[in-house]
Amino acid sequence: MGQTEISSLGEFGLIDRITQDFPLRNHSSKYGIGDDSAVLEFGDKLTLVTTDLLLEGIHFDLRYVPLKHLGYKAAIVNFSDIYAMNGTPKQITVSLGVSSRFTVEHIEELYDGIRLACEVYGVDLVGGDTSASVTGLVISVTCLGESDKNDVVYRNGAKESDLICVSGDLGAAYMGLQLLERENRVAAQSKEGKNFTPDFSGKEYILERQLKPEARKDVISMLKDKEIKPTSMMDVSDGLSSELLHICKKSNVGCRVFEDKIPIDYQTAIMAEEMNMNLVMTAMNGGEDYELLFTVPLTDHEKVEKLNGISIIGYITNPQLGAAMVTRDGSEIPIIAQGWNAFKKDE
Amino acid sequence: MGQTEISSLGEFGLIDRITQDFPLRNHSSKYGIGDDSAVLEFGDKLTLVTTDLLLEGIHFDLRYVPLKHLGYKAAIVNFSDIYAMNGTPKQITVSLGVSSRFTVEHIEELYDGIRLACEVYGVDLVGGDTSASVTGLVISVTCLGESDKNDVVYRNGAKESDLICVSGDLGAAYMGLQLLERENRVAAQSKEGKNFTPDFSGKEYILERQLKPEARKDVISMLKDKEIKPTSMMDVSDGLSSELLHICKKSNVGCRVFEDKIPIDYQTAIMAEEMNMNLVMTAMNGGEDYELLFTVPLTDHEKVEKLNGISIIGYITNPQLGAAMVTRDGSEIPIIAQGWNAFKKDE
Repeated sequence: MGQTEISSLGEFGLIDRITQDFPLRNHSSKYGIGDDSAVLEFGDKLTLVTTDLLLEGIHFDLRYVPLKHLGYKAAIVNFSDIYAMNGTPKQITVSLGVSSRFTVEHIEELYDGIRLACEVYGVDLVGGDTSASVTGLVISVTCLGESDKNDVVYRNGAKESDLICVSGDLGAAYMGLQLLERENRVAAQSKEGKNFTPDFSGKEYILERQLKPEARKDVISMLKDKEIKPTSMMDVSDGLSSELLHICKKSNVGCRVFEDKIPIDYQTAIMAEEMNMNLVMTAMNGGEDYELLFTVPLTDHEKVEKLNGISIIGYITNPQLGAAMVTRDGSEIPIIAQGWNAFKKDE
Repeated sequence: MGQTEISSLGEFGLIDRITQDFPLRNHSSKYGIGDDSAVLEFGDKLTLVTTDLLLEGIHFDLRYVPLKHLGYKAAIVNFSDIYAMNGTPKQITVSLGVSSRFTVEHIEELYDGIRLACEVYGVDLVGGDTSASVTGLVISVTCLGESDKNDVVYRNGAKESDLICVSGDLGAAYMGLQLLERENRVAAQSKEGKNFTPDFSGKEYILERQLKPEARKDVISMLKDKEIKPTSMMDVSDGLSSELLHICKKSNVGCRVFEDKIPIDYQTAIMAEEMNMNLVMTAMNGGEDYELLFTVPLTDHEKVEKLNGISIIGYITNPQLGAAMVTRDGSEIPIIAQGWNAFKKDE
């Protein structure tokens, strides 16, 4: 692969090159890249907007995250926020800060991932900003979505006796990160140097959960099909504990979740064992799962029980009872947020 | 002023603290900060979206830009893009990456500027993302605006014989930056050290144009009042030369602008003289003016001539004639973009 210095294209040249293969697919995207702003038309739909900032050295490590995967993930985490409102992502803008060690080909790789995510989820790239950066890579993504007026689901609607549900399984992305970091440490110490081959066999699932997460578009469709409207919903990005506390706080309720109901993949369990980590804590606090956490009225019990890939993990209580996990032996331990905190100094 | 470490509040604590004084003012802002996404309702209006990434060391230098001014400017440059579409800014999201040398009070100062801009321009803060950063300050702002369906003005509508107009004056912000950089160099060499007082007397205007630019909301209102709809429009952020070339390229036209018609403030002229810089080149290529550049049909000549603070600087030609400036002696020199390029290595 040739390596082209970004300065040889300049800002506008770079933008032209990386945005040429992004057609507009959505009716609501009236005008995309190339003017002072994009122009969108949502008509009688509500517009949803969410944004995420990803910084090299804080949110990702390019030693083990390929740029294409990074682009894909940067888009997905924003789509996930729109699905978590029971909406459909429609447009994104992507701003990049790029230091001089990156070439045009690197940026194209990153955009390959963004393009793939846009194709898979039917989202249009409609704008952005591209600039030099003094240090590492900076990625800022904003996503717009739409929803019918009565469809939006907030975090604040959970009611006492509602069932707490979660899609997929938890903790795998976090264990995937542990695996990548371990293999990276081993590689650094290895005598084989660059010829060192990390051992990922039997761990493909947790690796994929970390490197190529998906947003749960399918869950939103399934809920719509089955005419289930959650009373509250959010995506699991900082870890289940943290998200449960958000729902409890916003809805002014308490909750009980059962340790033995928390869905965990066996690869996650094996990796936690290998790393000598507490499995349930991993699943509760790992983060980056991008699963959907939602509550439904107790009357929907039969409907949700039949749903594929959805686990009922607990129920909503009155606020006085607080948030707690019921362990296998029936005792209760309070849920405290131990999710990822970008400002914690001792990490 | 006390100095509070950001880690003592954590991400959510910091967000709560800085966003508490941001009420929602606009009908279209249905739900702001505190869920997976904001919820907006534009109804039969078009939605405009623009985004800007500001990086320390590339776009700003905290040695001479106060944080409050930086916050104000970060918001304004986005509002300007929405006005440049003939729209009205309504919502912004602000994402921050903050390194450990910043305290909670620093971030509050920055948000004071954002808050002031939101108040002055009637815009709601509806979301964002806050994170640690390995190095300097990262600010990513996305702005949403609205416009009636037939009101949007693109860059691509300029027609042969249209008049080229610009609001305010040009080059002042760039000369303000030159002044700040000069005084900073002098201060660094001064024996007085921290007691050195920079000399800004008689240069208040160019300083303000650099540190506290405004978006031309008033110009958009005036055009609406006088029933003038530009055929093309954009804001002058990279410099007049660069913007004229954008309009020519997008509209497939050429242009002639007259050297002696380019509006320049006398403080800009004096500073260019002091710095031994070519005044017209400064006005053509300086950038960061955030004035509006627009074209109107020749039939609007009388109307625009009467407008306060609007200069007619030239006219649109057929594309074969290219883009050129007509000098005072009647000769033509081609316009080439020498605007600010964040990727140029020799700067």
